[in-house]
Amino acid sequence: MSLPATNFHPPFNITRASHLVLTSRDLARARDFYTEVIGLKVSDETATTIHFRGVEERAHHCLTLKRTKDEPACERVGFRVFGEEDLERAKAHFDAKRMPARFVNVPFQGRTLHLADAAGTPLEFCARMKPQAREHTRVHEHKGAAALRLDHMQVLVADVTSTAAFYADLGFRVSDYYCVGERIVATFLHRKDNPHDIVFMNRAGPRFHHAGFVVSDVNHVVRALDCAGNLGFNENLEHGPGRHGHGHSYYIYLRDPDGHRIELLLPPVQTIDIEDEPVRYNLTGKNTNVWGPPPPRSWFEEASPFAGTGVIEAPAADPLTLEKYLFAKAPKPEPVKRRA
Amino acid sequence: MSLPATNFHPPFNITRASHLVLTSRDLARARDFYTEVIGLKVSDETATTIHFRGVEERAHHCLTLKRTKDEPACERVGFRVFGEEDLERAKAHFDAKRMPARFVNVPFQGRTLHLADAAGTPLEFCARMKPQAREHTRVHEHKGAAALRLDHMQVLVADVTSTAAFYADLGFRVSDYYCVGERIVATFLHRKDNPHDIVFMNRAGPRFHHAGFVVSDVNHVVRALDCAGNLGFNENLEHGPGRHGHGHSYYIYLRDPDGHRIELLLPPVQTIDIEDEPVRYNLTGKNTNVWGPPPPRSWFEEASPFAGTGVIEAPAADPLTLEKYLFAKAPKPEPVKRRA
Amino acid sequence: MSLPATNFHPPFNITRASHLVLTSRDLARARDFYTEVIGLKVSDETATTIHFRGVEERAHHCLTLKRTKDEPACERVGFRVFGEEDLERAKAHFDAKRMPARFVNVPFQGRTLHLADAAGTPLEFCARMKPQAREHTRVHEHKGAAALRLDHMQVLVADVTSTAAFYADLGFRVSDYYCVGERIVATFLHRKDNPHDIVFMNRAGPRFHHAGFVVSDVNHVVRALDCAGNLGFNENLEHGPGRHGHGHSYYIYLRDPDGHRIELLLPPVQTIDIEDEPVRYNLTGKNTNVWGPPPPRSWFEEASPFAGTGVIEAPAADPLTLEKYLFAKAPKPEPVKRRA
Amino acid sequence: MSLPATNFHPPFNITRASHLVLTSRDLARARDFYTEVIGLKVSDETATTIHFRGVEERAHHCLTLKRTKDEPACERVGFRVFGEEDLERAKAHFDAKRMPARFVNVPFQGRTLHLADAAGTPLEFCARMKPQAREHTRVHEHKGAAALRLDHMQVLVADVTSTAAFYADLGFRVSDYYCVGERIVATFLHRKDNPHDIVFMNRAGPRFHHAGFVVSDVNHVVRALDCAGNLGFNENLEHGPGRHGHGHSYYIYLRDPDGHRIELLLPPVQTIDIEDEPVRYNLTGKNTNVWGPPPPRSWFEEASPFAGTGVIEAPAADPLTLEKYLFAKAPKPEPVKRRA
Repeated sequence: MSLPATNFHPPFNITRASHLVLTSRDLARARDFYTEVIGLKVSDETATTIHFRGVEERAHHCLTLKRTKDEPACERVGFRVFGEEDLERAKAHFDAKRMPARFVNVPFQGRTLHLADAAGTPLEFCARMKPQAREHTRVHEHKGAAALRLDHMQVLVADVTSTAAFYADLGFRVSDYYCVGERIVATFLHRKDNPHDIVFMNRAGPRFHHAGFVVSDVNHVVRALDCAGNLGFNENLEHGPGRHGHGHSYYIYLRDPDGHRIELLLPPVQTIDIEDEPVRYNLTGKNTNVWGPPPPRSWFEEASPFAGTGVIEAPAADPLTLEKYLFAKAPKPEPVKRRA
Repeated sequence: MSLPATNFHPPFNITRASHLVLTSRDLARARDFYTEVIGLKVSDETATTIHFRGVEERAHHCLTLKRTKDEPACERVGFRVFGEEDLERAKAHFDAKRMPARFVNVPFQGRTLHLADAAGTPLEFCARMKPQAREHTRVHEHKGAAALRLDHMQVLVADVTSTAAFYADLGFRVSDYYCVGERIVATFLHRKDNPHDIVFMNRAGPRFHHAGFVVSDVNHVVRALDCAGNLGFNENLEHGPGRHGHGHSYYIYLRDPDGHRIELLLPPVQTIDIEDEPVRYNLTGKNTNVWGPPPPRSWFEEASPFAGTGVIEAPAADPLTLEKYLFAKAPKPEPVKRRA
Repeated sequence: MSLPATNFHPPFNITRASHLVLTSRDLARARDFYTEVIGLKVSDETATTIHFRGVEERAHHCLTLKRTKDEPACERVGFRVFGEEDLERAKAHFDAKRMPARFVNVPFQGRTLHLADAAGTPLEFCARMKPQAREHTRVHEHKGAAALRLDHMQVLVADVTSTAAFYADLGFRVSDYYCVGERIVATFLHRKDNPHDIVFMNRAGPRFHHAGFVVSDVNHVVRALDCAGNLGFNENLEHGPGRHGHGHSYYIYLRDPDGHRIELLLPPVQTIDIEDEPVRYNLTGKNTNVWGPPPPRSWFEEASPFAGTGVIEAPAADPLTLEKYLFAKAPKPEPVKRRA
Repeated sequence: MSLPATNFHPPFNITRASHLVLTSRDLARARDFYTEVIGLKVSDETATTIHFRGVEERAHHCLTLKRTKDEPACERVGFRVFGEEDLERAKAHFDAKRMPARFVNVPFQGRTLHLADAAGTPLEFCARMKPQAREHTRVHEHKGAAALRLDHMQVLVADVTSTAAFYADLGFRVSDYYCVGERIVATFLHRKDNPHDIVFMNRAGPRFHHAGFVVSDVNHVVRALDCAGNLGFNENLEHGPGRHGHGHSYYIYLRDPDGHRIELLLPPVQTIDIEDEPVRYNLTGKNTNVWGPPPPRSWFEEASPFAGTGVIEAPAADPLTLEKYLFAKAPKPEPVKRRA
């Protein structure tokens, strides 16, 4: 299996991963989590839907939460295209490929195109959202992590290579990829100027693994964790603080009240130039946390379903989990010397 | 005077401001400043030239220092184009406009095109540099601010609007602009995903005002200042720490040992979407430092010459300087009540 | 003039500088400043008086603000003694010295002894305050700098040496002192485990120069300044951020809405051991800011009066002010080379 | 079992926990760990012994490492008394109690008294060390966490109450204590102005659990972990970053190359006043990490022996370990819906 080649003259201009839609069984509790811990701003809310944006975002929303009585799910992953004409070109492109794509109306968004990627992940593209004021300098009103903006999403898919090829054909570049032996097990793809808009990891899928939000610095991560601890979200930290071994950033992974996974990461490295070739990481038996303990088993195995989307099995994986790591480090029996 | 319209189908693809060339009368002293205070890495050095890069940069250099016996100057401001074919298109474009542009060889760079912008600023474009390892995670080797990368450059020009038009025609977008009354006195232009690759302010010019380097967070600014203080560079802080009133970032401005001005700023906001329309700031009598004291007079008046480039006068300006600010706040006479 | 020797068997046990009383012409505005910028908690408030404490303080108040229609003043500087029996010993000590000292009732405080020090500074001693909950971990409720606690106070006095002798006789140790030639111009005195409970500088006095509050780290200083800027207190930053040349800490100096000066500093060094001998700094012509620009003239000259207390003149001083510093660095005329 | 009462008129004046002696099987490797990760300065070294101090410490050493071929151990826990006369009083005190105490010579220390506490922990008291320069402002030379100073030590003992009584009789105050039901299972004791000089937890003992070093802020913890990861110490992080539930600080626990445990903590709260009464925490089933995952089993069970000191068994304990926590949170089976 080889890495797909980027189409540097893509049929239309996707600019970035921009938003996602999640469902929640307890909108009030989820609202607390996203405003008080992650620190997002509410752009609009009704009894059944809340739209959030990061404190620096002009875009109306990066996260839409919808009330559900069913199992919480990810409804859709959203990308921005640059202009309205890109939507037309996109529609024509997918029509030509005989891939279903249809225009829909979505509140606070311009004309929006719905489709699914090669793995079945439900996507949407739009060129415009209702503009809002940036609020990153209104520090006196910031809460929790004061997350700046949505950065990327990670999706589990049964076939990483063919899924990546779909995106490479639309102009995405691979910044990094993980291999186990010669098998590619993860790809980091980007359109904007940093290493990731969307990341695919090899598991049964498609399933939604996490959304990553950028925060200013480590002190905002600390504040998020203190707020989480004080507000009854202290069981929500799944992994971290740690540092990604492939050089991306410091991070924590939290589970929201419905179990959806949220990463907080620091501003990523800039990735623009032609010599920013894909970087390969050999994963076999490796711990990807530079600082020490790896993620727990839940991080590798649990993910949110995509609404209405079936799942395809993937080859078994054998990652180094926190559970294995702790077992290997199990305490020696106490060196007790009795006193006379 | 009105803001120039961006050409969204530019003749070739400039991706970012990427490097600059400065001259120095004391290369050893300047090397200390850039490695120990700014925290750049040396990619190559000879008796007469040093190439530096930021700790996260794969590009070979963002700053070239050349030894001089003359008055220190800025030789050239550099941009990246995406591919080699963009250089050909650029050459054809300027030839068609009858603007002199010629290919030259520059060490560690791919084919390089020299030209001057509408204001006379000496520029160069290239598509490639010799790749280097990113060193942003080698924290144990970081020094001073451990500056991540070059972000932007600011140039003083006699005619902000016509200069901005040159860049807008090449695909640059205006993120922000300053007005005094109806007169545009500054424009922030960008190609990459943040508000500035190049900034023009209205003064006698073209003259080089500053290069801005991105650092991770405020703690790295503090470390830079402590290192500066300890290593004999404590007269080099010209302004700050402060926060830009137009929402860009925290900053400090330092003068290097030759008087060239360097800004350290934090990771800027993301600027990508079509609704990221230019934001206007009315400057009249305003202090652009949210935290308090404005820059001193030297910040407004002093700049490095561009080598071999004449200067055109600009209309007189009357900014709020630190000197005026202090004068207005001069202490009241001491409220001395003598004792009996 | 020589440094006074510490009496290591003092007549009673003063434990720390603990509180102060200031008057304000606009209590509502001052409340905003102290809660939103400094980040103090309100322990009690009435129409005429507000009691504040730092977020980690169990003590009921470190700052009492009282409404006034007169010129804002400092009413009193407060110290803790360890136990009630220390108050009795203090009273007996001052009676024996024929220094007026009388017990008074102060709300939220145990029995309180009023007196004046050798320079005329109005003091009070108490052993107890009504305990409050520490709130330093309730991060989700923190505002501005979230100041942890009062650390020290600085007072201007006409005779630094005799004033320091009064305190040394009560068990205070000198951590640092400044000399101009052989003349002692400042003394830092402490009872608790860091370099300063009370600091005296040589000027017309006694006048109240500033109260220093400890904040956790530089990020809290930044948040304070952002809050100040956003809430209309952006003219209140008098000096800094900077770093004290004598190794004490990073700092900023703010003026509250009534002109009283507040320092925010980081957790100071520990000073306990017998070998922590007084450290001498020669001040002549020196800049005490490691990072660069010195304080403005107002910092050296302006101070709050002590209510009902006359002022004694001091020898003229000639500190390096920001104004002098800027004058010495005044921009060279622009190096304008006209174009043909 | 009840909390011992503090003797506020102790027989001699202990001022603080000040130093410890550990043995190492690989002095070169341990040196790397303490200088590059913890960031201590070397005050003196020979082929068999290294003396370290924190960057702000004037004291010659807070940690002495001695080469051993045996099992690594803690040789002794050290306290400062204020003056030489306190050593005489201490000797007289222990002689009167018929507890063995003898004067010895220790390099770089004044006259030193050796004894054991009620639990058998080997202690030493001294009044003086050879003074060194504080280096906390020499930021350009700082490494790793740039640990400021030793703060406290934690010791496991079979009988927490009787051990605490020994210290309370010498003037130590209890800041905090943990209970399981009515049984006291941990006591935090202090002489200096913060909550802990020495901490006892109920386990088979005496055994050395950890030494806590104060670092400036979270960013220094991050730098320590990055340096650890880069320098081959990435298996050394045992627990954290986390935040103590009883309000003390952020922390990490590292194991040095010989398995001795080191805590990095942030500047603790001030604890001076008479109303700083002991605070009780009920521990039953509790997680003491506010942020989430508790410490692993090794943290509760592993400790360094005290050289030449027998161990007494303690009642079985049943803390909430990371292993139990993960087991309780084990991933649900994957919610796989096959596709048709």
